[in-house]
Amino acid sequence: MDPSSLQLIILPAGLIAVAFALFLARDVLRRDTGTQAMQDVAATIYEGAIAFIKRQYTTIGVLALVGAVVIFVLITLVETTAVADTSHVGVDLGLRTGFAFLIGAACSMACGIIGMLVSVRANVRVASAARRSLVEAVQVAMRGGAVSGFLVVSLSLLGVWSIFAINGGLAGGQNTHDAPFLIVGYGFGASFVALFAQLGGGIYTKAADVGSDLVGKIEKGIPEDDPRNAGVIADLVGDNVGDCAGRGADLFESTAAENIGAMILGGGVYLLAQKAGWPSPESWIFFPLVVRAFGLLSTIVAMFFIRGSETENPMNILNRGYWVTTILSAISLAFVTNVMMQTAGGVTGDNGIPTWVYFFGSGVVGLATSIAFVYITQYYTAGSFRPVREIAEASRTGPATNIISGMSVGFETTLVTAVTIGIALLASNWLGAHSGLGSVGGIFGTAVATMGMLMTTAYVLAMDTFGPITDNAGGIAEFSRAEAGAREITDRLDAVGNTTKALTKGYAIASASLAAFLLFSAYIDKVNLILQRQIDAGTRTVQQGLMTSVNLADVNVFVAALIAAMLVYFFSSLAIRAVGTTAGAIIFEVRRQFREMPGIMTYEQKPDYARVVDITTRAALREMMLPGAVAVATPIIVGLLLGYQAVAGLLMVGTIAGVLLATVLNNGGGAWDNAKKYIESGHLKDDEGNVLGKGSDAHAAAVVGDTVGDPFKDTAGPSLHVLVKLLATITLVLAPLFIR
Amino acid sequence: MDPSSLQLIILPAGLIAVAFALFLARDVLRRDTGTQAMQDVAATIYEGAIAFIKRQYTTIGVLALVGAVVIFVLITLVETTAVADTSHVGVDLGLRTGFAFLIGAACSMACGIIGMLVSVRANVRVASAARRSLVEAVQVAMRGGAVSGFLVVSLSLLGVWSIFAINGGLAGGQNTHDAPFLIVGYGFGASFVALFAQLGGGIYTKAADVGSDLVGKIEKGIPEDDPRNAGVIADLVGDNVGDCAGRGADLFESTAAENIGAMILGGGVYLLAQKAGWPSPESWIFFPLVVRAFGLLSTIVAMFFIRGSETENPMNILNRGYWVTTILSAISLAFVTNVMMQTAGGVTGDNGIPTWVYFFGSGVVGLATSIAFVYITQYYTAGSFRPVREIAEASRTGPATNIISGMSVGFETTLVTAVTIGIALLASNWLGAHSGLGSVGGIFGTAVATMGMLMTTAYVLAMDTFGPITDNAGGIAEFSRAEAGAREITDRLDAVGNTTKALTKGYAIASASLAAFLLFSAYIDKVNLILQRQIDAGTRTVQQGLMTSVNLADVNVFVAALIAAMLVYFFSSLAIRAVGTTAGAIIFEVRRQFREMPGIMTYEQKPDYARVVDITTRAALREMMLPGAVAVATPIIVGLLLGYQAVAGLLMVGTIAGVLLATVLNNGGGAWDNAKKYIESGHLKDDEGNVLGKGSDAHAAAVVGDTVGDPFKDTAGPSLHVLVKLLATITLVLAPLFIR
Repeated sequence: MDPSSLQLIILPAGLIAVAFALFLARDVLRRDTGTQAMQDVAATIYEGAIAFIKRQYTTIGVLALVGAVVIFVLITLVETTAVADTSHVGVDLGLRTGFAFLIGAACSMACGIIGMLVSVRANVRVASAARRSLVEAVQVAMRGGAVSGFLVVSLSLLGVWSIFAINGGLAGGQNTHDAPFLIVGYGFGASFVALFAQLGGGIYTKAADVGSDLVGKIEKGIPEDDPRNAGVIADLVGDNVGDCAGRGADLFESTAAENIGAMILGGGVYLLAQKAGWPSPESWIFFPLVVRAFGLLSTIVAMFFIRGSETENPMNILNRGYWVTTILSAISLAFVTNVMMQTAGGVTGDNGIPTWVYFFGSGVVGLATSIAFVYITQYYTAGSFRPVREIAEASRTGPATNIISGMSVGFETTLVTAVTIGIALLASNWLGAHSGLGSVGGIFGTAVATMGMLMTTAYVLAMDTFGPITDNAGGIAEFSRAEAGAREITDRLDAVGNTTKALTKGYAIASASLAAFLLFSAYIDKVNLILQRQIDAGTRTVQQGLMTSVNLADVNVFVAALIAAMLVYFFSSLAIRAVGTTAGAIIFEVRRQFREMPGIMTYEQKPDYARVVDITTRAALREMMLPGAVAVATPIIVGLLLGYQAVAGLLMVGTIAGVLLATVLNNGGGAWDNAKKYIESGHLKDDEGNVLGKGSDAHAAAVVGDTVGDPFKDTAGPSLHVLVKLLATITLVLAPLFIR
Repeated sequence: MDPSSLQLIILPAGLIAVAFALFLARDVLRRDTGTQAMQDVAATIYEGAIAFIKRQYTTIGVLALVGAVVIFVLITLVETTAVADTSHVGVDLGLRTGFAFLIGAACSMACGIIGMLVSVRANVRVASAARRSLVEAVQVAMRGGAVSGFLVVSLSLLGVWSIFAINGGLAGGQNTHDAPFLIVGYGFGASFVALFAQLGGGIYTKAADVGSDLVGKIEKGIPEDDPRNAGVIADLVGDNVGDCAGRGADLFESTAAENIGAMILGGGVYLLAQKAGWPSPESWIFFPLVVRAFGLLSTIVAMFFIRGSETENPMNILNRGYWVTTILSAISLAFVTNVMMQTAGGVTGDNGIPTWVYFFGSGVVGLATSIAFVYITQYYTAGSFRPVREIAEASRTGPATNIISGMSVGFETTLVTAVTIGIALLASNWLGAHSGLGSVGGIFGTAVATMGMLMTTAYVLAMDTFGPITDNAGGIAEFSRAEAGAREITDRLDAVGNTTKALTKGYAIASASLAAFLLFSAYIDKVNLILQRQIDAGTRTVQQGLMTSVNLADVNVFVAALIAAMLVYFFSSLAIRAVGTTAGAIIFEVRRQFREMPGIMTYEQKPDYARVVDITTRAALREMMLPGAVAVATPIIVGLLLGYQAVAGLLMVGTIAGVLLATVLNNGGGAWDNAKKYIESGHLKDDEGNVLGKGSDAHAAAVVGDTVGDPFKDTAGPSLHVLVKLLATITLVLAPLFIR
């Protein structure tokens, strides 16, 4: 089979996935919407979500437009002056980059908006289905979630492919190696939107959660999701805008950045492979997109395996689909590597084993990493294992020991995270380096591992969005006082949803760190491209040479690395504080309504939910600005002051520090949450064997831990994933600025 | 003046400082020991401290002996085989390194033991002096603390000087450049002891604090330091073994490591300077020791300025001495640089400014950094500024918001810490690089900044030990029911002591990061020395070359960096958990005594303090083993698996990550502590303006934050300082193992 013929699958596979997403959306929307009471609550949530989306995406849209103009101006200026380019290539490049940025931003926004529109309509349909059948409820929730999943992956695939094609494809750039660089703007646009979507959504959701709980549960002593709490609708809206839209944008960015990084690397590998007699550049540059296309097709098939019995643990039903996706992905990966890397003219890997076998091995390493993270996250955040039990036990001596124990567990989770990522990098690099392509093959090996890992993205994202949908379904059932059977089912789904949300964060972290490693190489490639042009133009001496290393022993690089490690703490500090400030505004308003409308407590007056939603929206959008600005400005300032090599140090150490702090915050938060649930389900006993359940001091202590964990795991942690990738794309696009 | 004549001051200055320490000790010991009641409590604390010291230092001594043998065997094996050395230099080097390790360990242990012996005797004398005069109490506490301060700095100075002299001084090694390497074992020995002293002491002090408070204050409702609490003596003993002995070992290691690192760099600079016509190697290699000697002399003078009026804020009295030390240090630094760097044969700095002026500038940068950290720490941990007030305000909505706010403040403190360290490195490097000695001059510039910073170590350490002494004095006054006037004075001193303890941690962090940066360069020098020998011996090709960079883009280096950043979290997790486990043992025992001896609550029975002390001692020593082993083993494992360049990455990113996490833990903990004190002193008010003081819900929430902060700021944080330096010395000594 001709290796270049496989690239023809990219466009059809992308379109099929979009069509499949629309089919799923239609399937979800045509389902029944339950009782009038359910529809009323759902309509209120829907309105709140729409209000937030409108305002948030208007703000982000304006910011993106400003960003595109700034990029156009900067790139044009730098390319026409410093890079010694006397033709109009500079203006052209500025325009192309700015345009790609806007398309990336627009695609990311579209994914977020459409995914949320479906998820805020799926919630009530899940609540209604729960009155009849567990399996049906799982299917509706999963299909609703999969709309996001498929859109994210297919739009990122089609976007990268189109931008590449518009820019003339392989014939577009000065040479084959240059071509993929033209699309980095797309990744930057996606990162930029993801940063603000995740920050705004993350602040909104946790401020609403913490704020309404503090007044409702603690001050007034009414249950969670009680209709008398004016903040409850904002809380339910928050699940959608934070967990659903935020994580969608996060993974949209991961897949886009990985596509681009891998294509750039593919360009580098091609130069080498061509010399060694490999015939076709397509087999390297399009390889990442072909792998992604097969990942989408595997996931579509897996959606039909989401079935099971009414009495089964719903997690098993979801796991079935995950394993089908993984196995089909592995099989198609073998096929793709075999076809696209088979035609080596004289090149084979070490020990006479064909090149493709090594890269297939790298891809399997990626798939295995994905599975490993699923189980690691379960160990650290599920109630049946040591960490959560330890936190629950520590709650017996009060909130202080609960917090100390939770922090200790959060810190501990970095061990297995770092070791797993380390092994994945070393193993995939080793395989690639023995494939017959030398050290470039090694880096491409890590790229293939990332591709393997991200083949299952659409499925994982569907499981993630399953979380907020079932969370909302539970809220709707509670709020509309649905029959006990339905509530029992939504409670079970909600518990599974908490697990899947945690899993996705582990997956997002691992993929962010692998993708970032690709982008380092892409950055170095890009810098050298510019340096070479300067050398060719005579504005740089040959002695000054190219960038061959990122030397930490250089004081500029070391200081940049120090700033990078600081940035992840400072950014998290701002994100956490933003939740506190926004929650303060909510507390003030909910208290005011209780005070001025005494009929609320006796159900005689209806609280003004919309006003709380409005206040939360404004505050969240205001509060996302400072951390967002810090994230965007820091790499630029460091680059301008300390130069291009220092930026590479910033990027790498920022990735390490960001990934680990996100792990601490996500897993610590998840473990606190489930320690509380562990106590609520009656597993904790005192020395005499009496159950310490809801209402006990131990439970009160665990609630403190859970509240502390909220902004950690749902605001700061996920925002750090985005930050890590933003650092990579922003430096890749603005690299010319840092070279003097 | 002959530049080499100044080196003659090292030995006399060191001996004078030791004599001065003995004079201060005699002065403290001849003071009156107060009432019989005071003497009784003091005797109990003394016994407990002695019991712990004996056991702890026996354990550490055995570990150090084992360590010395292992080092001897490893170095001998590697040097005689891999480094292609057929003579007996290998055995010789192994012996010398093992011996230096033992001396370093012994000196560190001696400092810890003597310092503690004085401090546990000074406490009761301060309590007694407080009955008469504030200024006298300040003087006694400060002189008691200064015994540690002077011993630490002078023993580290004399130790390094002697080891160097024993090894033949400048004539001892193969050449001048080699000589200082012979003494790195001394630094490793100091680090090794510091690690276990800080871990064991830190676990002991916080477990006793948390454990006795949880049973006494929370379960039984009796005040802190109440004689009915069986854990109270262990708590008072803990102040000495954690804060006093631990920090002493920490800074002993800093000064020793800095001396060695700077001497190695001096050797490198000398090679360059010699070529440029500078006559004397002494002026570079002995320069760090001469600067240190002048620092000691400046501090001796400053001790006579610790005077003031009875109505003055005691902090002002201490500050007066600090400023005298700083100003005298700056003056003597100008003198030393002028004399020792004046004789350039043809070399001057840029713009015709003499070389010594640039290096004097670097030293001033170091002194300024020290001052900056004093004020930064005050801003973040003192009650009158925004951060502490913010945490106190957040306590109004309960423990969860108190914790969230405190974490956010802790994260925030990394900003100014990283920026200050970054500026200090860049500025001192810039000055050195323009001194006429090129890039080696730049690194030596950062070394001089470190020397400048560490000139004030003896004074800062005296202020630090002032903390536990006055804390103990307050406990003795409370316990012995001393008159109100005395207690009022000890309370004021205790508050000042809390501030000085926090300041010292900031100082220790900044000095650790600067010293570590020196040791990176020393490590690279050492590796290249070995590689060059291999090239000379023909076991390594010239093409393979020397180590010219620490390339983060290399997958091995990147993975090592990831492991390093993980190590600081994992190590902290173990340290924090160790406090929890040990506190559990104390809680169990104190509860048992209350239960089985009902007369305790009515003062009819005396609790068995000694048993709690004994249990705490055993548990703390057992629990320090795992984190200690992890710290020692990780760099060795990474080095063996990933090679010498990866170890450099581990070292550098470990330093960055360790310094920042320690900052978060120290300052977060300090801010929580002072937010509680802020509320206790009646500064927090509700919306109606009523004071929310002791006994309010806000106060209870702040107590939770304070308890969480305890293991952060007094166990994990300070242990991280030691870890950072241990990484540097262990890799420096074992570098030959990592080269294949």
